[in-house]
Amino acid sequence: MDRYDIAIIGSGPAALSAAINAKIRNKNIIIFGARNLSNKLIKAPKVDNYLGIKDVSGTELMEAFKDHIDNMGIEITYKRINNIYAMGDYFALMSGQEMYEATSIILATGVEFTKPIKGEEEFLGKGVGYCATCDAPLYRDKKVAVIGYNTDAEEEANYLSEIASKVYYIPMYNMEKTKGAGHLVDNIDIIKDKPVEVLGNEHAEILKMKESELEVDGIFVLKDSVSPGELVPGLETEGPHIKVDREMKTNIKGCFAAGDCVGKPYQYMKSAGEGQVAALNAVSYLDQMKNS
Amino acid sequence: MDRYDIAIIGSGPAALSAAINAKIRNKNIIIFGARNLSNKLIKAPKVDNYLGIKDVSGTELMEAFKDHIDNMGIEITYKRINNIYAMGDYFALMSGQEMYEATSIILATGVEFTKPIKGEEEFLGKGVGYCATCDAPLYRDKKVAVIGYNTDAEEEANYLSEIASKVYYIPMYNMEKTKGAGHLVDNIDIIKDKPVEVLGNEHAEILKMKESELEVDGIFVLKDSVSPGELVPGLETEGPHIKVDREMKTNIKGCFAAGDCVGKPYQYMKSAGEGQVAALNAVSYLDQMKNS
Repeated sequence: MDRYDIAIIGSGPAALSAAINAKIRNKNIIIFGARNLSNKLIKAPKVDNYLGIKDVSGTELMEAFKDHIDNMGIEITYKRINNIYAMGDYFALMSGQEMYEATSIILATGVEFTKPIKGEEEFLGKGVGYCATCDAPLYRDKKVAVIGYNTDAEEEANYLSEIASKVYYIPMYNMEKTKGAGHLVDNIDIIKDKPVEVLGNEHAEILKMKESELEVDGIFVLKDSVSPGELVPGLETEGPHIKVDREMKTNIKGCFAAGDCVGKPYQYMKSAGEGQVAALNAVSYLDQMKNS
Repeated sequence: MDRYDIAIIGSGPAALSAAINAKIRNKNIIIFGARNLSNKLIKAPKVDNYLGIKDVSGTELMEAFKDHIDNMGIEITYKRINNIYAMGDYFALMSGQEMYEATSIILATGVEFTKPIKGEEEFLGKGVGYCATCDAPLYRDKKVAVIGYNTDAEEEANYLSEIASKVYYIPMYNMEKTKGAGHLVDNIDIIKDKPVEVLGNEHAEILKMKESELEVDGIFVLKDSVSPGELVPGLETEGPHIKVDREMKTNIKGCFAAGDCVGKPYQYMKSAGEGQVAALNAVSYLDQMKNS
C-alpha cells in the first residue's frame, strides 16, 4: 500500500490551502473531500473579506480555489473518512472497509452547524449511525432511513439500497436546486419532511418527522462532517473544536488541524491561513521524521 | 481630536486584511503604512501559494490587494509611527510630534530581516536614531548620515536637510529601479556604499563603510520596521516576535498583532488570515468596551 506523506481531510479553504502548500513542497498528498468542495462556501451569497479577491459570490470564490488546485494538478479523492487511528509513526485512515496510510494528517473537517435531532445521540450505535458504508451489512433485508445533509449522502443511500429491503431518503437540502443532487436509484423513496425525533426502546424504531413518521430498523444521519473526537480517537478537543497550538499542532504527534474545526471566527481567509501553517509544519514534521 | 476605533500599524497582507474586515464591521479605522504597501511583497518574484490567486508575481498580488482596499474606500496614511503608549482605555500613537488616538490597535509591522550594523545598537540614542522626524531638532546645523532601507526614508532625509547643515544619504535599495525612489532634494549627497560600522567615543562620530567613511554628528537608520518592544513599551515578545494567543491578543488589553511580527511561517496567506482574526477580535473588544 502507498503511504502518503500527508493526508488532508476536508476540501474547504483550509484543506485546499494546506494542499497547495504541501504540493509546492513536493510532498505526496491525498485529499479526501466532497465534489462541491464546500457546502458552506457555495451557500455564501457574497464574500468581500478575502483579501485580493474583491466582491465575489461564494461560488465564484470556490471556482477561483478550484482553478488554483486544478492548475497545480491537485485532485480530490471523493471518499468519506470515518475513522483515523494513530499507529505511532503513521496514521491509518478508514473509509468504510478501505484503508489508507499517511505519515501525517491535517484535519480540516469544518464544524457541524446542524444540531443533533432529539434522540439521535441517545440511539447512536443502537440503530442510529453516521456511516452507511460501514454499517450497511447490519441492515441486510431491513428498512432504513437516510437523513442526507449533502449530495454525497445520495451515493451512500444508493449503496444501502443494494442491501436493505427498503431505503427512505430524507434530503436536508433542496434536491431540485443543488448542483449534483438527484442521483438516487429508483427504488429509494424520497420523503420531503423534517426529522424531529428518533424513538425506540433498546434500539431506534421510529423516525418521527413533522408531518409523518417512519417505522425503520436503522437511521443514518449523513452530515457534512463527523465530530473530530469521533473521527480520531484520543484527539483533544475544546467543546466542538480541536485543540491546537499556534503551529496548528494537535495533541497527537503528526496530526495537525486547521479551519473552522479548530475554532472561531468561521472565515475563509482565516481558514486558508491556518491551512498553510498546518501544511508547512507538517512538512517540517516529515523532514524531522526522515532525519531521525 | 478624533479617536479612531482601530489603528492598524503596517500595510502588508496582515494589515490590509485587518483593514477590510474592520471596515466591513463599520469601524472607524486608520492605517499607517508605506506607499508601496510592502517591500517584501514587491520583491517576491512568484507567489503560488495564496489560495485563489494562482501563479502571480508579488507585484501582481499587491495590485490585487490594492484594488481590494481601493474598492472599499480604504486609504493608507503615509506616516511612520514611532511609539505607542497604552493609556488604559485608549492608545496614544506618536508620529514624530504628531499624536493619534485609537481605542484599539493592531500591530502588523512585519519583521526586520536586516541585521543591525556593528555599533548601531551600542550608539542608539547616542547619535544613532531610528526616527529622523523625531530627532531632527537635535541636529540643527550639524552633519547627519541617513541609511535608508526604503523610499519613505528619502522624505525623512529631505526633512532633515532643512535643518541639518549637511545630509548624506546611503540608499540600501536600488535607487534607479525601485518604484517611487529618487526624490531627494539637490543638496543631499547620495553615497553608494555599504555601511559597516558606527564608530565613536561617547557619541557616534564616524560611519565606516566598505569603500569610505563619513564624519558625522548623527546617523539615522531608517528600516522598514522598528522592533515591536521598542514601538510599544511593555509589550511581551518572544525573540523577534510579539507574543500572541490564538485570538491574536497580545499581553496588552486592546492591543492585537498579526503577520510576520507574531512568528513564522513568513507567508502572505498566513498573515492575511491572522489579520482577519485580529480585526474581528478587535471588533469584539470594542463592542465589549461600549457595553461595559
